[in-house]
Amino acid sequence: MLEACYAVIVSFILGAIFCPLLIPVLHRLKYGQTEREDGPQSHLKKSGTPTMGGIAFLAAIVITGVIFARESTEAMAILLVTLGFGIIGFLDDYIKVVKKRSLGLRAYQKIILQLIVVAIFGFYFHTQVGSTEITVPFLQVSWDLGILYWPFFVVVILGTVNGVNLTDGLDGLASGVTLLVATFFLIICWQAGSNAALVCAAVVGGLMAFLLFNSYPAKVFMGDTGSLALGGFVAAVALWFQMPLFILLVGIIYLAESISVILQVASFKLTGKRIFKMAPIHHHFELMGWSETRVVTVFYMITALACLIAFLAL
Amino acid sequence: MLEACYAVIVSFILGAIFCPLLIPVLHRLKYGQTEREDGPQSHLKKSGTPTMGGIAFLAAIVITGVIFARESTEAMAILLVTLGFGIIGFLDDYIKVVKKRSLGLRAYQKIILQLIVVAIFGFYFHTQVGSTEITVPFLQVSWDLGILYWPFFVVVILGTVNGVNLTDGLDGLASGVTLLVATFFLIICWQAGSNAALVCAAVVGGLMAFLLFNSYPAKVFMGDTGSLALGGFVAAVALWFQMPLFILLVGIIYLAESISVILQVASFKLTGKRIFKMAPIHHHFELMGWSETRVVTVFYMITALACLIAFLAL
Repeated sequence: MLEACYAVIVSFILGAIFCPLLIPVLHRLKYGQTEREDGPQSHLKKSGTPTMGGIAFLAAIVITGVIFARESTEAMAILLVTLGFGIIGFLDDYIKVVKKRSLGLRAYQKIILQLIVVAIFGFYFHTQVGSTEITVPFLQVSWDLGILYWPFFVVVILGTVNGVNLTDGLDGLASGVTLLVATFFLIICWQAGSNAALVCAAVVGGLMAFLLFNSYPAKVFMGDTGSLALGGFVAAVALWFQMPLFILLVGIIYLAESISVILQVASFKLTGKRIFKMAPIHHHFELMGWSETRVVTVFYMITALACLIAFLAL
Repeated sequence: MLEACYAVIVSFILGAIFCPLLIPVLHRLKYGQTEREDGPQSHLKKSGTPTMGGIAFLAAIVITGVIFARESTEAMAILLVTLGFGIIGFLDDYIKVVKKRSLGLRAYQKIILQLIVVAIFGFYFHTQVGSTEITVPFLQVSWDLGILYWPFFVVVILGTVNGVNLTDGLDGLASGVTLLVATFFLIICWQAGSNAALVCAAVVGGLMAFLLFNSYPAKVFMGDTGSLALGGFVAAVALWFQMPLFILLVGIIYLAESISVILQVASFKLTGKRIFKMAPIHHHFELMGWSETRVVTVFYMITALACLIAFLAL
């Protein structure tokens, strides 16, 4: 536990150094991403805020992880997934911002790169953990998915990454929610006596530092660099501890954001009507008149409660 | 640990019910406190926000505490201090708001009432714990203060209450910082196997609910009802576990706010110059150009790190 505390502090300090160094660079290289055009009107004023800030906390996490846990298999496996998805996100951001191609990597390129990272992690997981069982919340049993485990494995990772990516649409939302989720897994790993706790601690510290610059009013956004890395981290740590179903609980915000988009698109295609004023759902609440900060606070509290319920469900 | 999770959830639900019921009542009875005139200009727009919102979380905390921990001596002792200081704060708020006497209770009245609560708690503490030792952070030793313990006891409680009171000057600041401090003591009590954890859990849940309405832009302030109750809680739980010196660590924001006021007043009286642009120190940062939300975020992160360092210092 003490080592994890040190890892949080080291990662925080690194992140707090990297962020203010990175932000002017992102500004100077004109890395200011144009806000996606599908947000509420009030977000247009944010078009000057640079993105790709995820580089700062990803660097802090990787350095801290290597310092504290380089000899731990599970810690390095989880860190590699985090870094792998972070690099995919970086490519995406880079193409968007520098090449001015507003949608970034093409969809098939993104999927292929993600599947490569998933395959490497899957192979590693198979040799090290080798179980196809998952713990079921509340029932205190495990299910063995057998051969179905592997498609499930892919869906969990890609679904979580996509969910975190959709969540990243309000100042401090994805970073703060994932800070809470990482704290949950820090406690889980620590109770299990696993050194993966040190990677969770690095994520907690890095995100704390990033929030100093990303909370409302944001001076920097994490970009896909950040959101893909965080999604990879959450999926990897949950899968390693056979807790993927717990992502539905502690990542209830990621889930709600994803489902709102799916329902919105499906409803519009089938009936021509929209269910939400705007999807993902955080924009729906904004258009109901909530301030951006209130939506973020409410989503934080929902996540904190969901983490507590997840402890009860173990 | 499971019981503490339930206590957080119950207290959160109660707080989330009480807040929206209370706010219109506070509005209707014209309980909108005029913002203290000594804040920055930008705060004048807040003069319509009602105060005394602390009633909502105090009620949630007391009800949850009684439900979960009525048979625990230490839990009830800590809860009584919380309630006692909350009532003093309520009297102060009530006189300010209803009687329109802008400074509330007279100073001597406030001190006498506080000393009564301290004396009752001190007597209780003396019979139940009976120790005059305090744990010293980092050194892994205890000091026995002997007869000096009792004046120290009074200073700790009054100092902490005053510190939380001064911290309560930005949206979500005192509530969020104390949420983190209460989480620290929740873990401490839980590790010690004490039912005082259940009162800490009630405070955590109540403050989570309150933050839904108190975070920027605040729909309600806690008032002295809330800040005195929270100060009493922090001091009582720290003293009960012989950790009053740890308040200087986890409550570093309370300390910084108090010291900034003391230095400002002393400097102005001695040299005629001011050290800070404005005291308490959160206003100094605002006048340096930081947004209110940034000051609050930075103070949250400092508190979270201080709590980690306090674990290392145990």
